[in-house]
Amino acid sequence: METVEIEFIPEGTITSPKGFAAGATYARIKKAEDSLDLGILLSEVPCVTAGLFTTNNIKSAPVILCQERLQRGRAVAMVVNSGCSNVFTGEQGLADAAEMAALAAKGIGTEPEDVLVASTGVTGQLLPMKLIREGISQIVLANDGGHELAKAIMTTDTVPKETAVAVRAGESEFTIGGVAKGSGMIHPDLATMFCFLTTDAAVELDFLRSALQKAVDVSLNMISIDGDTSPSDTVLIMANGLAGSEPISHSSRLADTFQQTLDRVCIYLAKALARDGEGATKLIEVTVYGAINIAEARLAARTIVSSPLVKTAVHGADPNWGRIIVAAGRSGVELVESKIDLDIGNISVVKGGRVLPLSEQNVVQVFRQSEVPIRLKLNLGTASATAWGCDLSEEYVTINSQYMT
Amino acid sequence: METVEIEFIPEGTITSPKGFAAGATYARIKKAEDSLDLGILLSEVPCVTAGLFTTNNIKSAPVILCQERLQRGRAVAMVVNSGCSNVFTGEQGLADAAEMAALAAKGIGTEPEDVLVASTGVTGQLLPMKLIREGISQIVLANDGGHELAKAIMTTDTVPKETAVAVRAGESEFTIGGVAKGSGMIHPDLATMFCFLTTDAAVELDFLRSALQKAVDVSLNMISIDGDTSPSDTVLIMANGLAGSEPISHSSRLADTFQQTLDRVCIYLAKALARDGEGATKLIEVTVYGAINIAEARLAARTIVSSPLVKTAVHGADPNWGRIIVAAGRSGVELVESKIDLDIGNISVVKGGRVLPLSEQNVVQVFRQSEVPIRLKLNLGTASATAWGCDLSEEYVTINSQYMT
Repeated sequence: METVEIEFIPEGTITSPKGFAAGATYARIKKAEDSLDLGILLSEVPCVTAGLFTTNNIKSAPVILCQERLQRGRAVAMVVNSGCSNVFTGEQGLADAAEMAALAAKGIGTEPEDVLVASTGVTGQLLPMKLIREGISQIVLANDGGHELAKAIMTTDTVPKETAVAVRAGESEFTIGGVAKGSGMIHPDLATMFCFLTTDAAVELDFLRSALQKAVDVSLNMISIDGDTSPSDTVLIMANGLAGSEPISHSSRLADTFQQTLDRVCIYLAKALARDGEGATKLIEVTVYGAINIAEARLAARTIVSSPLVKTAVHGADPNWGRIIVAAGRSGVELVESKIDLDIGNISVVKGGRVLPLSEQNVVQVFRQSEVPIRLKLNLGTASATAWGCDLSEEYVTINSQYMT
Repeated sequence: METVEIEFIPEGTITSPKGFAAGATYARIKKAEDSLDLGILLSEVPCVTAGLFTTNNIKSAPVILCQERLQRGRAVAMVVNSGCSNVFTGEQGLADAAEMAALAAKGIGTEPEDVLVASTGVTGQLLPMKLIREGISQIVLANDGGHELAKAIMTTDTVPKETAVAVRAGESEFTIGGVAKGSGMIHPDLATMFCFLTTDAAVELDFLRSALQKAVDVSLNMISIDGDTSPSDTVLIMANGLAGSEPISHSSRLADTFQQTLDRVCIYLAKALARDGEGATKLIEVTVYGAINIAEARLAARTIVSSPLVKTAVHGADPNWGRIIVAAGRSGVELVESKIDLDIGNISVVKGGRVLPLSEQNVVQVFRQSEVPIRLKLNLGTASATAWGCDLSEEYVTINSQYMT
């Protein structure tokens, strides 16, 4: 057995893997004057690239463009803006997305079809192309520019979300980095708003696509902030191979290590999105054990973490734990009341369907923590799944009552 | 053609049809000292009775009891309390529900199996049977007692919901009355929290069951307050035949009239529930036209009216109409961007997929109304459906952060 070391890189970001550069500018697409809102990510060499996109039947123009371009599984760069999502903008929206890619391609000296596009912000408005033309010409790319890109994709996010993990496996070394954004309209059903990943590992396209799907299934597809799925959901991973190893495929010695590392990066970013949900003050982590199959475990965990009644109870530290069980019931998964165990933090609240005495004050204590772990054991099978979400606060309502005004 | 007159009865309620009496008391199950919390509904003669219940896999003890007793399609009375839902209470909960029915049966001189039970309130706590025993003995029934019953079933409701409709069709006359309660954990999936209906029409059981299902499908199953389905959802209709007509069946001359009247009563109560949703300040009415089938029309309408982003935009009169289209997209129904029309109130916002100019201030005006009509035309087929909901306010969060504390 060779030794495998997997380490989070301090201040790691999307440009931590070898051969990636990024930069951003304030193009005045967003109203706030000090906000970066337009950025570019560039690889020194063409990347094997995979993507996952929203399942909303309304798709943003950039999503349509990316889905088409990624049939080849190849990209060199990506250009992204916040402040306007280019959703429900018809033919003009598609033309604008293509022009955005062409402008970026010209600036960095590559072919337009090797440039991907992502946009986030208000729906139903055309991109301000004059501002985007000016802005793209101002962007300066740097090998430590990932932090700028992480900021340029923020909308109602209060903090940038970025990380990178370094892997050493025997003679081989590679790094996976990523940035993501939330923080409303988050109920991903293939992906989340944005999660961009890079790696300097060499990876075969088939394996990269499958690894991305698996990682997203245990991370970004397991978070919910408000139950609304965005039409802009985009997850991309670009692998440039500059770490110098043999291409990783399904049969490679490194396949499991790559998958585990990608899972960790995606789970880290997914939790960061949930924790920074609009108006959120707490991270809620729900694990369902003992479901009859993995689909039911996932469904129950996601339903509980999405329930506005569970979310408000946690917000107010109101020990109304019955709502957790009611949400599991609503999810439609198979359950038997007399077999259910429920733990909130380290407090056993229900055991074999019986409510244990004197637990309410202890539940209040757990709900007051910044991270609230909930474990529901159905005791019917062996499948388990974890989902992440956040509390629902008055602030969420305030933010979304005044989004445009 | 005979003349059919259908009229809402001023201050109509569940005891407006002939031969029904009701009453309520304050049994101290609820904390608020001036709140009625225990009531009884009685018919002079046995009723043909149909019910619809929650689809939550966690079911309250009263729901389990009612489902069993209604296999015969017959009831004489109903006993109901608020303040404790008798949900997740195991064998003891079933025994308590049966005792509640037996106590009421003894007081009114009927058989226990002819008495139905309904309970609403906190989950996971046993009924305070001592208070219920004392309370039941104090209830005085009266032919105008329906208003008391409407109050006794309230939890976070701010107003009682009750109505009655009188029908005159040629020589025949009958009345349908009803009461209902919300106002959180409302996303009915067969029924809503409580909706109790009475009629003095004679109705055959098969037809009554089918008419109730149809009425609920266009009314209570088309409202959503917060996306959480209660384990106590109960709709009951009791038909005592005292209006003196021949029993109405599928082939009766009065079948259509009865169905239309029942639809109107149920829609009236459903809208009253939506308007009084927890923290609500407005009623939102979403109609989807031109869907490829009725299931898709219903799904799209319900998804839009349930979307927290649509609900907060309406709350703040933020003209972010794109969220309506995005929610339709998330619902998964078939749609084509370039065919979509969207009207908000009398304002045409989108026509054939194109955003019309200068509509935002007009949208703000409509969102400021106490009733907000939204019409989305998919223009793909001929099916349509209407759903009702309410805005999402900071007050909703406050109420549900402090439910137990």
